Parts: sequence; structure tokens; C-alpha cells
Amino acid sequence: MTETTGRRRAGREGGGRDGRRTARANTVVKTVPFIERKIPFLEYLSDEDLQLIEDNADILLEEIGIDFLDDPEALTMWKEAGADVQGTRVHFPKGLCRSIIQATAPREFVQHARNPERNVIIGGKRTVLVPAYGSPFVHDIDKGRRYATIDDFQNFVKLAYMAPGIHHSGGTICEPVDLPVNKRHFDMVYSHFKYSDKPLMGSVTHFERAQDTVDMAKLVFGDEFVDQNCVLTSLINVNSPMTYDATMLGSLKVYARNNQATVVSPFILAGAMSPVTAAGTVTQILAEALAGIAFTQLCRPGAPVIFGTFAAAVSMATGAPTFGTPEPSQVIYAAAALARRLGVPFRSGGGLTGSKLPDAQAAYEAANTLQTAALAGVHFMLHTAGWLEGGLAMGYEKFIMDCDQASMISVLLSGMDMSENGQALDAVREVGPGKHYLGSAHTLKNFETAFYRSTVADNNSYEQWQVDGSLDTAQRANVLWKTMLNDYQAPAFDPAIDEALIDFMARRKGSFADRDY
Amino acid sequence: MTETTGRRRAGREGGGRDGRRTARANTVVKTVPFIERKIPFLEYLSDEDLQLIEDNADILLEEIGIDFLDDPEALTMWKEAGADVQGTRVHFPKGLCRSIIQATAPREFVQHARNPERNVIIGGKRTVLVPAYGSPFVHDIDKGRRYATIDDFQNFVKLAYMAPGIHHSGGTICEPVDLPVNKRHFDMVYSHFKYSDKPLMGSVTHFERAQDTVDMAKLVFGDEFVDQNCVLTSLINVNSPMTYDATMLGSLKVYARNNQATVVSPFILAGAMSPVTAAGTVTQILAEALAGIAFTQLCRPGAPVIFGTFAAAVSMATGAPTFGTPEPSQVIYAAAALARRLGVPFRSGGGLTGSKLPDAQAAYEAANTLQTAALAGVHFMLHTAGWLEGGLAMGYEKFIMDCDQASMISVLLSGMDMSENGQALDAVREVGPGKHYLGSAHTLKNFETAFYRSTVADNNSYEQWQVDGSLDTAQRANVLWKTMLNDYQAPAFDPAIDEALIDFMARRKGSFADRDY
Repeated sequence: MTETTGRRRAGREGGGRDGRRTARANTVVKTVPFIERKIPFLEYLSDEDLQLIEDNADILLEEIGIDFLDDPEALTMWKEAGADVQGTRVHFPKGLCRSIIQATAPREFVQHARNPERNVIIGGKRTVLVPAYGSPFVHDIDKGRRYATIDDFQNFVKLAYMAPGIHHSGGTICEPVDLPVNKRHFDMVYSHFKYSDKPLMGSVTHFERAQDTVDMAKLVFGDEFVDQNCVLTSLINVNSPMTYDATMLGSLKVYARNNQATVVSPFILAGAMSPVTAAGTVTQILAEALAGIAFTQLCRPGAPVIFGTFAAAVSMATGAPTFGTPEPSQVIYAAAALARRLGVPFRSGGGLTGSKLPDAQAAYEAANTLQTAALAGVHFMLHTAGWLEGGLAMGYEKFIMDCDQASMISVLLSGMDMSENGQALDAVREVGPGKHYLGSAHTLKNFETAFYRSTVADNNSYEQWQVDGSLDTAQRANVLWKTMLNDYQAPAFDPAIDEALIDFMARRKGSFADRDY
Repeated sequence: MTETTGRRRAGREGGGRDGRRTARANTVVKTVPFIERKIPFLEYLSDEDLQLIEDNADILLEEIGIDFLDDPEALTMWKEAGADVQGTRVHFPKGLCRSIIQATAPREFVQHARNPERNVIIGGKRTVLVPAYGSPFVHDIDKGRRYATIDDFQNFVKLAYMAPGIHHSGGTICEPVDLPVNKRHFDMVYSHFKYSDKPLMGSVTHFERAQDTVDMAKLVFGDEFVDQNCVLTSLINVNSPMTYDATMLGSLKVYARNNQATVVSPFILAGAMSPVTAAGTVTQILAEALAGIAFTQLCRPGAPVIFGTFAAAVSMATGAPTFGTPEPSQVIYAAAALARRLGVPFRSGGGLTGSKLPDAQAAYEAANTLQTAALAGVHFMLHTAGWLEGGLAMGYEKFIMDCDQASMISVLLSGMDMSENGQALDAVREVGPGKHYLGSAHTLKNFETAFYRSTVADNNSYEQWQVDGSLDTAQRANVLWKTMLNDYQAPAFDPAIDEALIDFMARRKGSFADRDY
């Protein structure tokens, strides 16, 4: 808890700091707004294999093409860009999408937060860790699984704000199903701005909701700033295989034309929405992503865009999606390398799992996915924390556990300290054979920052663990999230902006009827 | 269970196979005796950083030196080899150890199993996964934690024999504390030979026990074969920092002089037995390993030897060892690269954890360590399955869970299938935009081998999972290990050899009194 508390304190503007709190803040590991990678990417495939996948994706784009449904404007834009449009099917001459993308799409970009200290850079050697997204349910070990509410949503915004390893407030962390479908985006966007000062993602379920998000962002950042800078990221899922629908195209156009970032994400349950092989799946992903990413550049050349990938494998026995297994890892490694060759930032999932509980399955699967995404070189890691049950539930304890892993990933990607102090020759000289280092000068000098300290692991003796109640990890995490919510203090927020947002929402909500779709 | 059953069946010699069993075996993924790596190693450090560590290790070896305690013969051997011996302290001229090693130590070698189909190759592009080692306790969720017995030991030999992802029978899987300390090695070695036909590790707790192990192996393989081939691996822990004791040296000499493999393993709780930095720790590890590995070559040039590393980090708050955190991963990545540069096979731990239970902590930590070891390029992965509580307990459910992960690692390291079938262009042509692949010809052709199927994960719907009893992962694993033990059938074993081993043990056990040390 020390780390978390200190993280929050460090981020607050002003406020009375008594001695006790200052002392706590001072013992804290300094946090950073995103990870600066200092280790190489894991290149799972050879250049020849990657070239073959690129060639095959070009074959798919030309020969089979991509459907752009119920959006005549998009078809016209593609015709003008040189594609061969047959009905709703767009066929792309080889290399067309790539050349459009490489002409104008940024290799990296800044997404601004309302607190500039929380600005993230997406792309290059950076990794930005983002909460899970999109679940209708929440889960905790007290009350089990239930539909999510706006209270749950705000709880997770607060937890993500306080978590030192999470760099982003996310988007639809969970669906506040107690609010009307066509108005809940107001409350979600407002909650991100109000209860956090980390960057956020906008609504994509309707182009008008995307526009509402942009309009709210303008109230926070100003019209001119929003037009010239990225302050929103948005998740545009492809209807795989090889289809973009009007809903996603509508939101994509709003964000891209407002110079805001889209994450163009083939959403793949491999074996159902793509071929039942990893190479076939990643080929289709590349084809789909190329078409969507290029389309953002037709909407507004230079608009920030991220190559997204969500890949699970379907169980051939039951049809259920599976997570944390090797084939989706292969897909992530390959897709990350393809995005680097294309020259755009890359997104994949983080702590994915099919488990219903914050148990061993959840942890194995999440760790496998987190490690893969980190080593592959994901720039924008959606679903880093909280994901349960294939994305159907957002778990309170799972969120806490994953945040612990997120902080570890930051250390892992930061490389080994090869300074003279890191080499520690003098430490060995001081101690020598057969002695121990616990009280050595080098240890005393370094112990506060040496070695990552897990927030949820119990490494005490068996006897001490029994004295402490023989708790399992989920039970310890349960205590932590409650303590964090209890300790939460909102970041400072300009009252005039707050009022403007509330006023905007009231007017907009009053201008049309509630709807459940 | 299908995989496991089939694995066992496939390994059996003869026996009546009824139709049902044949059908089950036919649905099984073909297993292999070890993993052939087809992906690159993750090179965490640059060549310059690795060179710096090597230079620093040479400084430590020359300036500070290594203690060889209570073994005058070892000191004499080092003197003759050109080292500067002061009392028990051996100082090594720069490059001496490396040149001794590179002159004769094999880059890779075969460890023979009594069933030649189970022979493993250790080194190069192979990975051999080995059960956990050395715990005094066992744990299951029915009876909790208790002292291990020879029954537990044999149970784990049987489980490792049946597990398709485990390539080796291991050594002291758990300590059979119901047997006298000075005689239990007979029963452990015998149990490996009797209840498994995978390769095994020998006793190292006394040079006479090492010799007993070699003598038993000679009864199985023949004297001449053992002298010319590796049939045993043995774990020689360094008393870090920078000390070899007489017990370990005694066993090392027995194994090396009999041409059997040693794993020379600095045993490091970083911050206590090594400097509190990763770079300092790996420097000390390299120095210690160089001295011990070179010593095996003084004992018998050409004796097979493995560069071992066991690195946990000590919690600076409590002094407890911690696992699955980033710094030990950094150490493994660096040490694996140093072993490659030295030209000897590398060993590290696998599914390490400090957790007392087969819960989320256990799984996160194990997955982080397993992924790291696999990607770093570990050739001999000790502690792949079963480890709990910092090695104090061998867990039945944890073993089953880790075996599932071991099988996944095999797929991950085997690379992506880039064949025409893997590329799957025709599958996309067949299905096209907006359709699904579930019934496509390509899917039907590939579904049996497509995508790893976890043995312990539950990916069913929430409702189906409730119908099935709302079990967590540990509860499902509990069912699996009991089923496996119930289904176990021993591999064929030559009765004459069996009798010779029993006779040898009886004579040796009768020749000296029981002792508890």
C-alpha cells in the first residue's frame, strides 16, 4: 500500500500534507508516466517469415478484399484512393494500404492527459499499460459475479488512478448497466476526467457518442488544443473476418477527423474468425489492420493510429475462447514485429484469462499474456489489469494482482543497471567468500530501491503466514482494493471545467430519450 | 487426461491394447523426449554488457578467489592447474577457468534413459523440463502441508512419468523423511528406475551416496556403458558466496570421474549471498560457476557439466526469499547468455514461487519464471513442476498445473508453422469476409492438432462452470492427479535388473547403521 499511497500523493496538486503522510511519500519508489524500454524486442519470426506474411496479406487484400458495410462515403473514399470497389467489397492493389500509411501515419505520438505529468508517448521504445475494457459484469470474492454499475466503473477509475504500474485510465472499464445504453458514455467519460488525471479512451458505440466524447474533451483541453493534439484514444474493433461495419467506421471517422487516436483492432477468436493456424491468423490480422489504418489516413492524413490485435484461440473441443496459451502468444510476437516494420505503434491485450475466479488459472494465463505482450514490444497494452472470464467480468482482486504484475513489467523492460554501483565489485570485495551481504555497505546503500517488492505476494514463513490468517492471494488482494478505495483522494480538477462538463451532459442527456441500444 | 493417458500408452512396451484405449491413444498429440527450440534466444544484455560481466568475474576470481573447503586434493589439483592457492583460497589467473572449460567440456551431451526413447540431449537448441527438487514437505488441498514420505516420492515419480510435458524424472523430488537420512538415497534412485523410464538425477549429499548412485546405474546400464556415456545428472550447489564445501566437492568428483553430468549451481538469495544488484549477482554467479565447472574438467576432461543458476531475491523488508519478480529474471537472461558464450549447457529453475498454496501468487510467479527460463534458453530446467513455498513443499496440485504450463512451453519454443497449411491462404479464400471458419475444410483438416488444449483450465461458460461445481483451478488439478495415479501403469522393467538393484540395496543398507544425518 505504501507505493500506491505515495503514488497518489505525488500526483496531487497542493493540499495539506502532514508529517506522517510526507514520511510515507518519501519511502516510495518514484513512478513514471510510461515505461521507457531498454531491452530488445523478442523477434520470434525471421525477416523472411515476416516478409512472407506481408506478401500473403497483400494477396488477401487484392484478391479477396475487405467489406466496408453500410458506409457509402467510405467506399467513395477508397475509390478515390485507387482501390477497386465492387459493391461493399474493397480490393486493394498490392502495397496501396502500406504506402498510404507510411506517407502520413505517425510512428509515435503523445496522448495528453489533463495533468501534463501523466502524458503518455505511444510508440517507439515506450510501453503504456491500460486497464481492461468492456465487461458487463464485475467480480469480487465477497459478492461474486454481478452486473456492473457506474459505482463499479468509478471504483476502477479510482483504482487505476492510484496504481503506480498503470499509466492510463482506460475506456469502458466495465459497462455501467444501471445507466441507459445511449447515455452512459457521458458518465463514463466524465468519471475518467473527474476521478483521474491519467489519459483516457473515448466511446465508440455510435458516431454521435464519439462526437460527444470529443466535445467533452474540448471542454477540458480547449478546441484548438484538441484539433492539434491527441487527447483521446479509441478502440475500433474489426468485425473479423475482413469486415468493417458502419458503427465502427462512424466512430473511426469522428476520431480520426478530430485528430484523435484510433486503435484499429482485428478482434480474433482464432479458428472461428480466422484460420485455425497462427500464421494464417496473423496474415488475416495484418490485412484487416492495413485496410483500417490506411482508412484513418484517408480521413485525416497524420491522424494518430495504433495497429491493434486481440487474439484468443477457440477451443476445438467446446468452441470456447482460450487465453494464455502459446498460439495467441505467437500471434502477438508476430503482429508486434509486423507493426514495427509498418512503422506504427502496436496494441495487444495484457492480463487475459478465461477463468471465472482470481485463481491459479487466471494468474497463469494473465502472466503468460503480460510477459508476451511486454517482450513482444506492445506500445499500448489494453486489458493490463482486471480482466476475468474472457472479458465478461472485471475483477476487483484480479485488478490488484495484475497491477502488481504491471509494476514488475516496468522493471523488467527497464533493463539491468550496469553502472559501477550495479556491477557491485566493491560489494564482493567487502564481503568475500563464506560471508553474507545483508549488512554490507553496498546493501545498506541500495536496499530501499533494490528488488521489486510485490504488493500481493506473501513470502513470509509458513508459520508467520498462518499467524496472519492463512490467506490466499485473492483474500490479500481483497483487503488491498478496499484500503485503496478508502484512501482515495481525487486529483485537483478546475471547478469551471467540472461545471462545464456537467452542464454539457445535462443538456445533451435532456435532448433525446433513454434507449437500451 | 487424454493426453496424459496417451503419453503413457505410447511409452509402454507391449501389453494388451483394447479398442477403446487405442482410440484414446490415437487422439493424442505426439510427444517428444525433449524440446527442439526453433525460436531465437532472448538476448537481454548487449555483447558489451556481457563482456563487462565476464571481465569483472575474472577480476573476482583472481583478486578475491574461491574457497575450496576441507578438500586438500582439490587444492593440489588447482595448484597443478596453475592457480595460486593460499590456504583454502584459490586465486585464478585471468582466463584460466575459461580455457580449461573450453578445452574439454562438451557443448552438449546425451543423457541416456533406461528407455532409449526417453534419452535427452542437453545443450544447444534443446530444452529439457525436470520436476522440482529437494523439498522436505508435500502439499495437497485435501490434507494441507505435511512431511514427505517415500510414498509421496514415488507418487511424483509416477506423475512425472505420465506427464507429457516433463522430460526427466528428476532427483530428490521430495525428501522421504520416513527413511533414514543416510539410506534414503537407495530408495529414491531405485524408485526412479522402477517407476519411470525417463532419465534421472543422482544423490549428492555424501560422496558415498553419489558412488552408490553410480553403482546402481551400472547395474541398469552396464559398467562400460556408464563409463562412456552420461546416464546421471547431479545437482552440485555452490555455498555462495564463493565457497565449495567438502560434501559437494566429494559428490562432484565421484560423478565427474565416472563421466556423469554435474550441474554446478551457485545457489543465490540475492542480497544475502550475493550483492543486492542484478549485475553484481550475475557476476558472482559467473565467477563461482567458472571455478566449479573448470574443476569438473580437472577431475575428468570431457566430463559432461551444466552451468547452473538458482537465483531468488531476498525481500529487504523481511529477509524472505522472493520469486517470479523481475530481478531474478534479469539474472536468468544474463546467465543463460554467459553460458552460451562459455559454450556449456545452462540450467535454471522453472516454476518457482514463495506461495504456500496453489493459488494466484503461485501461478503468477511460476509463469513468470517458466517464461523467462524458456525464452532465455535454459537447457535443463530444474523445478519445472511442483515447487511451492520457496522449495519447502512439493505440491500435488501445483505439479499438475505446472505440467500444463510445461506442455505450453514446448509449443511456444517450437516456433510458428510457416508451411503452406500454416499460412492458410486457401482457408481465407474458402471462407471470406463476414463468415466463420468453424466448419471450413482447413479447420476440419487441422482441428485435432490446432491450438494447445490446457488440462486444467476451464474455459466453459459461467453457467456450465457452475453446473460443473464452480471449481477453482486447484480443485480441478486435485481431481487430475488422483486420476493419473489411479491410471498409472509401470513401464516394463527387466526383472533381472530389478532383482540386482534390490539385492544391491539390501547388501549396502545392511552394511552400516541408520543415521539421521
